Amino acid sequence: MNIGLDMMGGDFAPLEAVKGAADFIASTTNTAIHLTLIGDESKIREHLADHPIAAGRYSIVHAAQVIGMHEHPTRALKEKQQSSIAIGFHLLATGKTDAFISAGNTGAMMVGALFSIKAIEGVLRPTIGAYMPREDGSLGLLVDVGLNADCKPENLNQFAILGSLFAKHILNFENPKVGLVNLGEEEGKGNILAQATYPLLKANKQINFTGNIEGRDILLNKADVLVCEGFTGNVVLKLAESIYDIVKRRDIHDEHFDRFNFEQYGGVPVLGVAKPVIIGHGISHALAFKNMIRIASRMLEIDLMGKMKNSFLEQA
Amino acid sequence: MNIGLDMMGGDFAPLEAVKGAADFIASTTNTAIHLTLIGDESKIREHLADHPIAAGRYSIVHAAQVIGMHEHPTRALKEKQQSSIAIGFHLLATGKTDAFISAGNTGAMMVGALFSIKAIEGVLRPTIGAYMPREDGSLGLLVDVGLNADCKPENLNQFAILGSLFAKHILNFENPKVGLVNLGEEEGKGNILAQATYPLLKANKQINFTGNIEGRDILLNKADVLVCEGFTGNVVLKLAESIYDIVKRRDIHDEHFDRFNFEQYGGVPVLGVAKPVIIGHGISHALAFKNMIRIASRMLEIDLMGKMKNSFLEQA
Repeated sequence: MNIGLDMMGGDFAPLEAVKGAADFIASTTNTAIHLTLIGDESKIREHLADHPIAAGRYSIVHAAQVIGMHEHPTRALKEKQQSSIAIGFHLLATGKTDAFISAGNTGAMMVGALFSIKAIEGVLRPTIGAYMPREDGSLGLLVDVGLNADCKPENLNQFAILGSLFAKHILNFENPKVGLVNLGEEEGKGNILAQATYPLLKANKQINFTGNIEGRDILLNKADVLVCEGFTGNVVLKLAESIYDIVKRRDIHDEHFDRFNFEQYGGVPVLGVAKPVIIGHGISHALAFKNMIRIASRMLEIDLMGKMKNSFLEQA
Repeated sequence: MNIGLDMMGGDFAPLEAVKGAADFIASTTNTAIHLTLIGDESKIREHLADHPIAAGRYSIVHAAQVIGMHEHPTRALKEKQQSSIAIGFHLLATGKTDAFISAGNTGAMMVGALFSIKAIEGVLRPTIGAYMPREDGSLGLLVDVGLNADCKPENLNQFAILGSLFAKHILNFENPKVGLVNLGEEEGKGNILAQATYPLLKANKQINFTGNIEGRDILLNKADVLVCEGFTGNVVLKLAESIYDIVKRRDIHDEHFDRFNFEQYGGVPVLGVAKPVIIGHGISHALAFKNMIRIASRMLEIDLMGKMKNSFLEQA
């Protein structure tokens, strides 16, 4: 399998991307994994001198341009055809690579994922999830966290399926509990969307729906996959991220709150597109890059995309 | 002025309600404030023996029934006409009292406020706010936090006006900054509702609109009044409440996080109804009751209802 990695994305690129890639190759037992490093070839080679990767385990594809973190996503992707992100998606779309990872411009990654990679057949809207650290040490998955600000009940029902498959095969929950984020626990509570979504989730045999989840339970393990539209999900994610900032500013040292440092998780996958696309945090360091490659390789090893595809064939 | 107080509402009633009422009367310089204590007369008198209130500053209205914390709001209000909440709203609606406070069944308080007290003319939907503790020691106001799960742009625009008046006159912000809770900072971001609300807030001359507020800024002082529909607001409020629970469980002692103990704030007003109605936390102690009476008396002293009324006449 060939995993494409944007070497120019993120605040500490390409150094941390090179380190992460080297660490991953040094640690994996799967010798079939090949990395395609996409970016400024001379800079990449310079860092590779200090952080070598075994010959034959990687190749470099030169990209003359970089999309900045604050550029307009659609415009930048269109105008910068030689950027590492544009080339990364081109390689993925044409089958030269099997997955693509970047810690660069999030918007450009979303646009690229939606418009250059096909959605899995039957998936109405791909989604992006985020990890929620829980006190028992595990990670829940909140979907959607901003890709779909307005949703229909059927979208949330599909997020539940996609999220459950990711939670099962990547987060290692045997039978992930699905909760519907809501303003009350009882069936019948909620806004129009949540009220209409509840019966769909309840009737969905592909998921383990356990009912509504209130805000107070998002950081507990009442549900492993937390489903909501991207507006509420985005506000929740960024509020949770800000808790870590407050904890840091107040010089509080606590193992659990350290897990609110969302940088360490590497990145979140775009779920519902036909190939693994992973979007990293701008402030990704080597560990984050290594984790993102690990997740992408795991998604390929267990054929998560095939499982998702079958799931939607089953549903149809 | 005559403030009605439900003595039977909350986990520690009527003792803590009596203590709070006694503390308030002992501390206030405004001798024109009279309290109407509504509840089980013999129990109230029993506690008054230990926590006396000056004669002439209070009267007792006996209520033979209590609405439990988990009773169905509409049904309970209808069936328990002799409950302290039903009597409290009856006294308020008929002008026997000027305000009503309860730490009892939240749903029954909402239903009572909406159906026995008229909305201010021009107000489409009354709302409930909650305080958001910020690191600078101040409190922001988040509206709505659950009364209106589905909203139209005009509702949010009105919440902004009501919230601004409350923030100015009760929370003492000179010119409260209004922020629209959203998933991005730039104008044009958001779900359909937020996108349609932005221009209304921008054009509203009665408020000091400062733009969109992301989840990460809710606990900062970027905006003093944070406007959103009640679905997102409820999830945010309960998530913030759960942070305090986590902090407590992890034995973290921190002045700022102590302020996430929402019990201490006494209660939140229903904004947009023609008379002060304040809903307290179930676990209210004496300080919370005292604070709620203080807020209600302040709302009456400065004629906040009149100011709200004028605001909507102006808008019309």
